[in-house]
Amino acid sequence: MVQIFGKRAVKSGLPPGTLVHIGQKRSDRVKITVTEYSEGQYQSREIKEIKECLPLKDEPVTTWIDINGIHNLETIEYIGRQFNLHPLILEDIVNSEQRPKVEDLGKNLFVVLKSLSYDLEKKLDIEQISFIIGSKYIITFQENSEDIFQPVKTRIKNSTERIRAMGADYLAYSLLDAIVDNYFVILEEIGTKLDSLEEELVANPTRETLHSIHQLKREMLLIRKSIWPSREVINSLQRGELPFFGEIAAMHLKDVYDHTIQVIDIIETLRDMLSEIMDIYLSSISNKINDVMKVLTIITTLFIPLSFIASVYGMNFKYMPELGWRFGYPAVLFTMLFLGILMLVFFRKKKWI
Amino acid sequence: MVQIFGKRAVKSGLPPGTLVHIGQKRSDRVKITVTEYSEGQYQSREIKEIKECLPLKDEPVTTWIDINGIHNLETIEYIGRQFNLHPLILEDIVNSEQRPKVEDLGKNLFVVLKSLSYDLEKKLDIEQISFIIGSKYIITFQENSEDIFQPVKTRIKNSTERIRAMGADYLAYSLLDAIVDNYFVILEEIGTKLDSLEEELVANPTRETLHSIHQLKREMLLIRKSIWPSREVINSLQRGELPFFGEIAAMHLKDVYDHTIQVIDIIETLRDMLSEIMDIYLSSISNKINDVMKVLTIITTLFIPLSFIASVYGMNFKYMPELGWRFGYPAVLFTMLFLGILMLVFFRKKKWI
Amino acid sequence: MVQIFGKRAVKSGLPPGTLVHIGQKRSDRVKITVTEYSEGQYQSREIKEIKECLPLKDEPVTTWIDINGIHNLETIEYIGRQFNLHPLILEDIVNSEQRPKVEDLGKNLFVVLKSLSYDLEKKLDIEQISFIIGSKYIITFQENSEDIFQPVKTRIKNSTERIRAMGADYLAYSLLDAIVDNYFVILEEIGTKLDSLEEELVANPTRETLHSIHQLKREMLLIRKSIWPSREVINSLQRGELPFFGEIAAMHLKDVYDHTIQVIDIIETLRDMLSEIMDIYLSSISNKINDVMKVLTIITTLFIPLSFIASVYGMNFKYMPELGWRFGYPAVLFTMLFLGILMLVFFRKKKWI
Amino acid sequence: MVQIFGKRAVKSGLPPGTLVHIGQKRSDRVKITVTEYSEGQYQSREIKEIKECLPLKDEPVTTWIDINGIHNLETIEYIGRQFNLHPLILEDIVNSEQRPKVEDLGKNLFVVLKSLSYDLEKKLDIEQISFIIGSKYIITFQENSEDIFQPVKTRIKNSTERIRAMGADYLAYSLLDAIVDNYFVILEEIGTKLDSLEEELVANPTRETLHSIHQLKREMLLIRKSIWPSREVINSLQRGELPFFGEIAAMHLKDVYDHTIQVIDIIETLRDMLSEIMDIYLSSISNKINDVMKVLTIITTLFIPLSFIASVYGMNFKYMPELGWRFGYPAVLFTMLFLGILMLVFFRKKKWI
Amino acid sequence: MVQIFGKRAVKSGLPPGTLVHIGQKRSDRVKITVTEYSEGQYQSREIKEIKECLPLKDEPVTTWIDINGIHNLETIEYIGRQFNLHPLILEDIVNSEQRPKVEDLGKNLFVVLKSLSYDLEKKLDIEQISFIIGSKYIITFQENSEDIFQPVKTRIKNSTERIRAMGADYLAYSLLDAIVDNYFVILEEIGTKLDSLEEELVANPTRETLHSIHQLKREMLLIRKSIWPSREVINSLQRGELPFFGEIAAMHLKDVYDHTIQVIDIIETLRDMLSEIMDIYLSSISNKINDVMKVLTIITTLFIPLSFIASVYGMNFKYMPELGWRFGYPAVLFTMLFLGILMLVFFRKKKWI
Repeated sequence: MVQIFGKRAVKSGLPPGTLVHIGQKRSDRVKITVTEYSEGQYQSREIKEIKECLPLKDEPVTTWIDINGIHNLETIEYIGRQFNLHPLILEDIVNSEQRPKVEDLGKNLFVVLKSLSYDLEKKLDIEQISFIIGSKYIITFQENSEDIFQPVKTRIKNSTERIRAMGADYLAYSLLDAIVDNYFVILEEIGTKLDSLEEELVANPTRETLHSIHQLKREMLLIRKSIWPSREVINSLQRGELPFFGEIAAMHLKDVYDHTIQVIDIIETLRDMLSEIMDIYLSSISNKINDVMKVLTIITTLFIPLSFIASVYGMNFKYMPELGWRFGYPAVLFTMLFLGILMLVFFRKKKWI
Repeated sequence: MVQIFGKRAVKSGLPPGTLVHIGQKRSDRVKITVTEYSEGQYQSREIKEIKECLPLKDEPVTTWIDINGIHNLETIEYIGRQFNLHPLILEDIVNSEQRPKVEDLGKNLFVVLKSLSYDLEKKLDIEQISFIIGSKYIITFQENSEDIFQPVKTRIKNSTERIRAMGADYLAYSLLDAIVDNYFVILEEIGTKLDSLEEELVANPTRETLHSIHQLKREMLLIRKSIWPSREVINSLQRGELPFFGEIAAMHLKDVYDHTIQVIDIIETLRDMLSEIMDIYLSSISNKINDVMKVLTIITTLFIPLSFIASVYGMNFKYMPELGWRFGYPAVLFTMLFLGILMLVFFRKKKWI
Repeated sequence: MVQIFGKRAVKSGLPPGTLVHIGQKRSDRVKITVTEYSEGQYQSREIKEIKECLPLKDEPVTTWIDINGIHNLETIEYIGRQFNLHPLILEDIVNSEQRPKVEDLGKNLFVVLKSLSYDLEKKLDIEQISFIIGSKYIITFQENSEDIFQPVKTRIKNSTERIRAMGADYLAYSLLDAIVDNYFVILEEIGTKLDSLEEELVANPTRETLHSIHQLKREMLLIRKSIWPSREVINSLQRGELPFFGEIAAMHLKDVYDHTIQVIDIIETLRDMLSEIMDIYLSSISNKINDVMKVLTIITTLFIPLSFIASVYGMNFKYMPELGWRFGYPAVLFTMLFLGILMLVFFRKKKWI
Repeated sequence: MVQIFGKRAVKSGLPPGTLVHIGQKRSDRVKITVTEYSEGQYQSREIKEIKECLPLKDEPVTTWIDINGIHNLETIEYIGRQFNLHPLILEDIVNSEQRPKVEDLGKNLFVVLKSLSYDLEKKLDIEQISFIIGSKYIITFQENSEDIFQPVKTRIKNSTERIRAMGADYLAYSLLDAIVDNYFVILEEIGTKLDSLEEELVANPTRETLHSIHQLKREMLLIRKSIWPSREVINSLQRGELPFFGEIAAMHLKDVYDHTIQVIDIIETLRDMLSEIMDIYLSSISNKINDVMKVLTIITTLFIPLSFIASVYGMNFKYMPELGWRFGYPAVLFTMLFLGILMLVFFRKKKWI
Repeated sequence: MVQIFGKRAVKSGLPPGTLVHIGQKRSDRVKITVTEYSEGQYQSREIKEIKECLPLKDEPVTTWIDINGIHNLETIEYIGRQFNLHPLILEDIVNSEQRPKVEDLGKNLFVVLKSLSYDLEKKLDIEQISFIIGSKYIITFQENSEDIFQPVKTRIKNSTERIRAMGADYLAYSLLDAIVDNYFVILEEIGTKLDSLEEELVANPTRETLHSIHQLKREMLLIRKSIWPSREVINSLQRGELPFFGEIAAMHLKDVYDHTIQVIDIIETLRDMLSEIMDIYLSSISNKINDVMKVLTIITTLFIPLSFIASVYGMNFKYMPELGWRFGYPAVLFTMLFLGILMLVFFRKKKWI
């Protein structure tokens, strides 16, 4: 639940533009990684304070500042002053319950996306990643999802990779691509869960199964809410109406857009499958009740008439001629046997056994 | 129910433009607060009659007239004459069942929004707030929800706050922002209720739980009906097609618009969660019936055949050889025991126990 | 049912433009009321035949001809000839199953709307009202719903009312407003029914309750079908693209349009509430079955094992040592009591009692 | 089922433009009716081969060629050659599973619609009717639904009817109108069925009732699929963007368009009613189960405790003091009676009896 | 499941443009068929390596290169270099989980579609077919669905067929047409399955039936996901905004587009029918439970009171006068018979038997 509302409401009543970190604080320290590269050059270092790298030097390199720890408001404010960002933008960066969106700020571009992962206890973890994209620099803000950008960092390090020869726009594309690619990993994990749920349903559905179905449904709800708006964000990037994106990066963004649509397609299919599985669960419960009812009815219908006959001959009337008959007892037993068989034939005809 | 229809129907048949207060009258008196401020100046006073402050003096200040008590028709009519408002507008102000909307009246702007709160008995309370927005003044009309604007009043009082330096458009933005921010508080409260409902469901669902789910669903219905149209209202304000909103206020309104979409997102998610919870309730009932059925079936299936055997040997036939056997009784007991165990094995196989 | 299809099919095969009255004939006679007024002048009279007032005299007055009894085809045809109306328009007037619509006929405007009311047996009654709107005259056609226009007639009579000073366009607006205002009355009545249904549901749901829910659902279906298209009709009137509507009337029409949207909002909310109520009914039935099942299971589970014990000691074996024991009987009774208490504890633990 | 897929798949793999009749062949022969008329002139004759009337003579008459039997491919091909129709158009004519559509072929217009009827065994019969509309001629293609055009033929015969004075466009309108008018007849029949189903539901719902509901649902599915696209077809005709339709015919087409929307309205209402009826059926089943459960529970709960008491006194213990009491038997009987009454009071309180 | 996600996630983290075959590898070898033809000329040969036919000779022929085996990355890369294709396009070709789409690459057109078939084990098999369409050549990429294009190959071989005289655009049309035509075959097969499922439902619904319904639903989900986007693809082709398609081919594409819409219509109808069938299944289960309940209730209600009477007279009280009566036994028997008949009459009245 926390993931939907966090503490957004704490801000109610504060003047607009007040920086308040909303979301889970994952670590006490802030980790800032500065990567500078051009075709021939590469340097990556971790710094303690943002002041060490700002203002940017006027060199022909692409600079990527990756900030881990948006709870550190001083860093955010310092960047805001350096890049002349509106307080409302800074507010959006530290409010991790922002909706994915893109805003053209004139001198740079502000993009918010969501990254998904499963934490150590296998709970879905939705993280917000904000981008400030300039012509020669990119600043990424997150609380704690460094891993997702690791492949991009590795590629930049490797001087033979294409990315080294390209500018900040291509870097932006690579980072967005990394986020969207990661969605596939999460959805595949969910697909696997769904498969095993389905097997459980066929083999032996328990209350645990139902609980898992509902949990998965809840997760799909959150994932859908996080990813749907991304579509519009990436679409407006790839339409090329926004600055900073050269032709090559734009063409690659079209690919990212295709992937986003595919992700949404998969989400919808998974949702359909989940309700399908829920239906199967419900009809299996229904079937079970039916089964139990049948057994109950067969046993009752079989024995109640027979018991009645027995209790008739258990009456203590003085004058019950049958009781004195030589073969009364076996005759009654045979009658009962015959009645029982008749019943069984009736059940067979009714397709109950 | 009252909150949906009030007494709208009492107006049927009256000539258009007839002022009739529709909605709950919350207090007998009307409270009028006049706040005048500019960067260097600030005055706020409560007045008895609207005539004390109108017509507005021609000074370079921003004036905010906050009217609490729309049931007082004379006040409304006096304002209408002073600002030359159409009777239909006045009608909308006193009809608290208006739909959120914005109307460009040429010399000023008419905006209607809904404010949500929980009253003392924890019942959802939907209030209508109307705005007359001019280039240098704002008039707000409500019946009794003063608290919602308290933070804004405090900010205006404080001479260091930005709001003091800005005009009526920024004040309008601040008031709208206060209303939308308040939605988050309400939704968070509902989210908390939903969480505790879910825990109840897992622990021990009762009829009370079902009742609470339905109540919450009903509340969501009302909230959704109140907030959805606000989206279009704030959108048309932020698109900048309407007068009076300078660039700065317009940019801030974009932020309010983002929040409104986020609110609607949360509403839809909460609704999805509610139906989810309803589903869980229903399948838990279904499971319970199943459980009860199983116990019934196990007991019946176990004892009915055994009782039958006992009643057979309770018959009074003269010639029943088994009755005379030395070990007839223990033999029958063992047979019964054996049958019982057989049944239990069958139940175990069927996964009923 | 009749209200949906009437006898529309009787026309199949007839040449287009053939006048056939479709709908219920409510009275044998036709009642024609002619009202002529200007700011200083007023005359209202009931006439026997339409010829008495047509063709219109060339005076500076607004004329309103209100025709009650569209089954009278001669009247319709006479008007058609006088005002040069296309046969298809006349066909639409007498076919009371027309969909609400507006048509610009050049020299006049043709509008069809639906009016709702409850008849004496509290059954929903949907009536069609057609308007021919010219620059100086309005003709209204209906079968029998005079009451709805009564307030307008009263207002015209009263020389101090604004309507007297305005033209035919303002009259048209007043009539449309009267129809839409009446929707609120009907919806409020339905809201009241819904409230009492809900109370019934809580107190003691019977089959009658279910029947009422379905009836209300059916009514909502019909109301929705009648009112939805009105939205588009009134919208195209208020957009001012059509002739005859001056600025003042157009502004008032915007108000009617707002009301129509509000009506549709309420209809949708009522529909949502109805399905909510249906859900409550269904889960209350489900709960009831569960309750009955529990009682059955408790009784059966309690007594079947005890009866079994009793029947064991009712067997007639010669050698049953327990039967001879001095305290055999009380021992068995205590065993039974103990078993019974054990069961009750089990039920309590299962939360069944 | 056949009505949805027919043998469309047989064409898979054939070169495009290959003529294959898809659909049910209703008669062995082909019936061609040629009607030529102008204001003063009228001739209608049935011919054996299409060659007898083609190419059209160059006279100032309107020619209508009505072809019954689209399975006869030579006729279709001959017409194709004479009127220079594209093979794909001919393919559409003989493929009776075409979707309703309109195509502007330059020299003529190609229209496909569906006609509905109930056959002798009361099964829904969906027929395809294709039109080739030229400036002076119309060719209609169908397999076997002559009756639907009978009223138009009769009207043409009658020299006083308006249709005689009009051209091919008015004829086209008349034919389309005949088809759409016929929809009302079918829908009314369905409405009647629905009414009788509802009465059955109230009186005595059986499995047959359920079957009928499902059948009706299936029919509605097919009808909807056939009629929905007609809306767009007739709309593009009435918008007047297509050639051949003069002003008068266009105005009449607007009327046909209104009817089509009305038909779709009725279809949607009928579908809503059907699901309503399905709901009623399901809750009546639910109620029935509840009823049966109650009877079962009452009987069981009433007699099981009493039987238990009786079986206690049926035990054969030697020392059971009560058995020897003088009034033991009547005491037990009274106890039983008392218990039974107690139970009945409990049931009454629970509102079960 | 595999069909939805395959191994798309393996690519996460790889640089964009890296070729990785995603999907099932169906055969170890790659089969390349080159067909060259013009009106007078025809040659078709199977080659081992793509180098044998590239670069294309500059002759006035249409060349179709059909590549079976997209897992062979060298072939794809070689074609990419020869035709100057962007690495992202090549990536799409070998990623068989692409969404159907069309891309205008300037010098050629890139089209992705899905082909459906049932494999030997009657499992739905969704294959991706990509097209590179140039002015004089077409390259098709697939993994293993050669059969679908067989009819087109045969037609090209036959010198009298129209296709020989047309260019690459007509060939492209023919191939698309072959794919879409095949959809009808698959849907017809599903329709047949649905029919037999329905018969099973009426005759004797088993758990197997339910399983089949769910399987069919799942298949429909996958088919819908594969075919829906095709609609937009073929629409943008037929709108003629893309190069390479002459007027004749464009007209034929319109026909393909009509078929695609028809396919989607059928899919939706089939889905509606499937939920209908699911409903029937569920209400048949419900009916069955009801039936079982009735039998149980009849038997129980019939015999429990009778057994009670018998057990009363089985009590061992010393003073039970009835036991000594001469006709006590037959009197009790008659009482029981009378009670039994009374019950049966009651059941008959309740319509249970």
